[in-house]
Amino acid sequence: MERRIEVGVLGATGMVGQHFVKFLQNHPWFDLTWLGASDRSAGKKYREATSWRLDGAMPATVADIVVSDSKPGAAPKLLFSAMDALVATEIERAFAEAGHVIVSNSKNHRMEPDVPLLIPEVNPEHLKLIPLQKRRGWKGFIATNPNCSTVVLAMGLAPLKRFGITRVIATTMQAISGAGYPGVASMDITANVIPFIGGEEEKMQQETQKILGDFLDGRVEPLAARVSAHCNRVPVVDGHMVATSVELSAKPTEADILAAFENYRGLPQERNLPSAPARPVVYMKEPDRPQPRRDAERERGMTVFVGRLRACPALDWKFMALGHNTVRGAAGAAVLNAELMVSEGLLSA
Amino acid sequence: MERRIEVGVLGATGMVGQHFVKFLQNHPWFDLTWLGASDRSAGKKYREATSWRLDGAMPATVADIVVSDSKPGAAPKLLFSAMDALVATEIERAFAEAGHVIVSNSKNHRMEPDVPLLIPEVNPEHLKLIPLQKRRGWKGFIATNPNCSTVVLAMGLAPLKRFGITRVIATTMQAISGAGYPGVASMDITANVIPFIGGEEEKMQQETQKILGDFLDGRVEPLAARVSAHCNRVPVVDGHMVATSVELSAKPTEADILAAFENYRGLPQERNLPSAPARPVVYMKEPDRPQPRRDAERERGMTVFVGRLRACPALDWKFMALGHNTVRGAAGAAVLNAELMVSEGLLSA
Amino acid sequence: MERRIEVGVLGATGMVGQHFVKFLQNHPWFDLTWLGASDRSAGKKYREATSWRLDGAMPATVADIVVSDSKPGAAPKLLFSAMDALVATEIERAFAEAGHVIVSNSKNHRMEPDVPLLIPEVNPEHLKLIPLQKRRGWKGFIATNPNCSTVVLAMGLAPLKRFGITRVIATTMQAISGAGYPGVASMDITANVIPFIGGEEEKMQQETQKILGDFLDGRVEPLAARVSAHCNRVPVVDGHMVATSVELSAKPTEADILAAFENYRGLPQERNLPSAPARPVVYMKEPDRPQPRRDAERERGMTVFVGRLRACPALDWKFMALGHNTVRGAAGAAVLNAELMVSEGLLSA
Amino acid sequence: MERRIEVGVLGATGMVGQHFVKFLQNHPWFDLTWLGASDRSAGKKYREATSWRLDGAMPATVADIVVSDSKPGAAPKLLFSAMDALVATEIERAFAEAGHVIVSNSKNHRMEPDVPLLIPEVNPEHLKLIPLQKRRGWKGFIATNPNCSTVVLAMGLAPLKRFGITRVIATTMQAISGAGYPGVASMDITANVIPFIGGEEEKMQQETQKILGDFLDGRVEPLAARVSAHCNRVPVVDGHMVATSVELSAKPTEADILAAFENYRGLPQERNLPSAPARPVVYMKEPDRPQPRRDAERERGMTVFVGRLRACPALDWKFMALGHNTVRGAAGAAVLNAELMVSEGLLSA
Repeated sequence: MERRIEVGVLGATGMVGQHFVKFLQNHPWFDLTWLGASDRSAGKKYREATSWRLDGAMPATVADIVVSDSKPGAAPKLLFSAMDALVATEIERAFAEAGHVIVSNSKNHRMEPDVPLLIPEVNPEHLKLIPLQKRRGWKGFIATNPNCSTVVLAMGLAPLKRFGITRVIATTMQAISGAGYPGVASMDITANVIPFIGGEEEKMQQETQKILGDFLDGRVEPLAARVSAHCNRVPVVDGHMVATSVELSAKPTEADILAAFENYRGLPQERNLPSAPARPVVYMKEPDRPQPRRDAERERGMTVFVGRLRACPALDWKFMALGHNTVRGAAGAAVLNAELMVSEGLLSA
Repeated sequence: MERRIEVGVLGATGMVGQHFVKFLQNHPWFDLTWLGASDRSAGKKYREATSWRLDGAMPATVADIVVSDSKPGAAPKLLFSAMDALVATEIERAFAEAGHVIVSNSKNHRMEPDVPLLIPEVNPEHLKLIPLQKRRGWKGFIATNPNCSTVVLAMGLAPLKRFGITRVIATTMQAISGAGYPGVASMDITANVIPFIGGEEEKMQQETQKILGDFLDGRVEPLAARVSAHCNRVPVVDGHMVATSVELSAKPTEADILAAFENYRGLPQERNLPSAPARPVVYMKEPDRPQPRRDAERERGMTVFVGRLRACPALDWKFMALGHNTVRGAAGAAVLNAELMVSEGLLSA
Repeated sequence: MERRIEVGVLGATGMVGQHFVKFLQNHPWFDLTWLGASDRSAGKKYREATSWRLDGAMPATVADIVVSDSKPGAAPKLLFSAMDALVATEIERAFAEAGHVIVSNSKNHRMEPDVPLLIPEVNPEHLKLIPLQKRRGWKGFIATNPNCSTVVLAMGLAPLKRFGITRVIATTMQAISGAGYPGVASMDITANVIPFIGGEEEKMQQETQKILGDFLDGRVEPLAARVSAHCNRVPVVDGHMVATSVELSAKPTEADILAAFENYRGLPQERNLPSAPARPVVYMKEPDRPQPRRDAERERGMTVFVGRLRACPALDWKFMALGHNTVRGAAGAAVLNAELMVSEGLLSA
Repeated sequence: MERRIEVGVLGATGMVGQHFVKFLQNHPWFDLTWLGASDRSAGKKYREATSWRLDGAMPATVADIVVSDSKPGAAPKLLFSAMDALVATEIERAFAEAGHVIVSNSKNHRMEPDVPLLIPEVNPEHLKLIPLQKRRGWKGFIATNPNCSTVVLAMGLAPLKRFGITRVIATTMQAISGAGYPGVASMDITANVIPFIGGEEEKMQQETQKILGDFLDGRVEPLAARVSAHCNRVPVVDGHMVATSVELSAKPTEADILAAFENYRGLPQERNLPSAPARPVVYMKEPDRPQPRRDAERERGMTVFVGRLRACPALDWKFMALGHNTVRGAAGAAVLNAELMVSEGLLSA
């Protein structure tokens, strides 16, 4: 990769935008040179437009960038979207129409039939949906990454897809950082559990079926599995846990499943993409792992850790999965998506 | 109830023992006059033998009771056992043999075929097992209450038993008070989740089947349901949450299930037993309830709160259940068991 | 007390207002019959106008009260003010002018020279300021209670006033409930300390001097002590801790101070006012107490617990004080103020 | 630094020992080749002898080292001591007598008159005490670092020493990691504050005076300041906060103090020692910083962050200081001590 690629972030001043800004620091391929936000911020320096909420200081390389408004024009071709769902639909479409490549973390386009809902290790063939977007009259296109809890479940299940997944029950224990800032009130979550996250269960159920579906005859056929999610907020800072029971038609043994976890690799590992972890899924043998505070940050937050594989008396097998919700579940996911698309030549056109 | 009944607590100096001591304060039927503990504590006043760990001060009525060693003799007939599982088996048997009625919170005898694993609202007919204990040559008998997470699941499921429970997946988020003192290290649980509690999943699975089983032909036939538990510790002080998916052969509607929750009552309510809550199971309509910090202490900790009933794409229905683990899951459970046994005349013999 | 007194709450739908509503349930003297709020809520039933945030359910006795707008007229004579500081000044004055007795938890009038900043056990003689308010042309009057951290410090210091307080350094560790709802973001306080609470240090410093000051020549002469506060937010639900060092000109012994704490009583105890605790200040001998989670709720939240008295190498003595911030620091404080005023005949005029 | 130096850790299997093992990974000067522990562990591989409690996995470079017993002989000359206070006195002396250089984190020798209590930026001249240890008949010597809360206070005060420190009141809010493992019970600290840490206040008071004292006439004359500490445990994972009020005889202005913080540097910075932070003390201008969860880990945990400088009505100035208790307060402190000693030629003899 000799030529560096300029990139921008839409929704750069918000919490997810800040995660993008941080994750893109020192990226070997991408130079973050453009920051888009609402009219209210446009024209100000990023340091003035932004209440920096992440640990450590705002990166010096972006502090003096003047924020642009969210309209196509001077922006780089490759844009990461961290926009709020309330506004993302129209703006992402406007940029795609104008020829930009939108790699979006927003939920808005995830379930549209011609938009890839991409995990590079899991379903790179879903990129074949992209040409379909030309039918919309767009010069560019949109690709999306999953919801932050979906990605943990989908990556934990992906190595088992070969065994025929027919039924899944997943109960999450999700970190407060998943709700942004100010997000969850401390009066609600201190020493407490909130057994509800609006829209989250539906997202986990539908997105998982699409992600694990096959590209066939010009479309993605969702996985024909019954997927049920119970979503809960717990007082943890980073890292979503997903207690998972799964029914597998091939009736694999414990050794089969452990080997599937152990050997799971994808294109990002083959191609050694910059943000790819050495292994997308790592099985921990300790009986009480993974744990969010101790494990979510490992491997730069890009690995999903699984553990506690054991027989499930109600379905077939059960296990715990953990992933870093603001990295593998948001900014890191989108950047890896972009790296895969670059490696596929999708930005050269 | 004119005549007051003297009662004692075995294992009185430990954390569970302290919960018994606290719960029995001002009991309208029972006078706590005897406290048993290990040889190390015997002969000391309770105030000297005990590091009081509960909120508030040690009740004045017990502070000067001289602790007895754990041998039958001078103890009252009715004894609550809060003993550690390491020692409970032999000591409980010795007392039962000597004619005492042991109402135990320990796990040791729960799964024995002639010992009731009792929730007074759910399976009072299991008391019919007690006469079988005479075959052991005992003059007294043992009755037990469930594990602190089992009781939440079993009470949440009990109103649905009529619909034919065939499959259950339950994921717990359990409070730290369930592990006693010092229990869980703060370095392990602060802003963290521990996805493992030793032996807990097996207990939840087996005990639930026994509790919801029927008394037939002189024995308890376990419920023929496949029950799977995922047990997790979360940073909550009191109250175990159980995210539950259930398969029901009668395919009830949502209204059927809500009515079953709404109308659920048992013998303790009929007989107005002193520790019985007005309703054993209460359905909360708010979309984000029940919550442990806000709801576990309500109704003196004796009610199981359920909520969030919705269709489960993988089984039939899913909901959340919450119960107070040191009250309905321990001391309060045992005291209500004793009240039921008194009301059945089982202590008069 | 034969005749019951009708009372109202201004700002009834907010978090502090809800604390008033809860605290006034089953009050032996006061009937809560009137609830005032903003125009937005006026005309709705309380249950519709209010997102109830406190533990347990909204009291049934208030749920159907129709909320009034915040204008004098139909309101009872005695009103508790839980209004936000942004609007309290004008509204409280309008009611006082119209003849109402405003017992306010708002900060707005606390430091005015003719308004009592009252802790009934500490400075009941400050009620003599009330007649001065007639100069404002008011038919009624305003009395206030201290800030929620001030009250803990002032009550901890009050028994020592006789020893000549000349210098105080107080470092708080304050509960999240002090910030209302949604208040502190969980992303800010989970497993963290925030060393700043806007305006709090100034309030603690000034209010403490006024509260502990003497009524002389028709005015309150502030205590001539140098008072310094460091205010911090910690992840605790209820209960403000105040680590206190104090310089005392009379150089009392440890025994003198312990006796002063031990024997401290006030008018509320003498007159057995309904919300008065048996003892306003209780010294705990255990080396690691008081603690907010274990002690704040005791004595219905109306007692300030002190402990850990020891020599201070830099001033004279140091100790820890703890009080319940939403009870003794807000609703309970105001209700006790009103009880004192009733017992003084100030409502009969 | 061409020649690498072999080092060992005494007490290597404990929690503090594990912090040393982690901190010494990839050290540019030191090779960790020797691990000492109790007889119980000696002879086992480190991976077998140790329950690794730190985040991430045990470093591969030490996992197969066979643990030695804690007797002089085959150990390297330079040894870090992470031993428990119960055993450190005799063992550290035996090693020093045998010619080893003991760089100890244990409290046992800190206050002995011929032992440096060293913070390399603050009191490097205290190394002149080392020759006095020859009087003990030792071929080697012992140097120590401060208690984990002392170091935060002493480094926060060091830039102000020039202004004549005469009085200090410091209130700590200390992280749970300071208590080791299992350390603080979660039942004690969840949503709570514990206002007591055994022996901690005395250590902070005495050690601060020694550290900030001057080396004069062959001994350290303690700082003639009255120092008072209030020590509290709060539910934070890493990072001790110290709310500090200070009396300064030279009556500096705010600008004087800010400049003193700003310009503070020491020998470690001059000599660019490997573990030295760019600046030992950094003043944060944000009104609500420093914060433990957001700031303690910055600068590899070796910087003390100060903030909120403001006039103290009771003494002269007040501010907040924060340091990483297991890095700058333990392993990092000792390693920087060793680096300073190497740079002084104290290991060449």
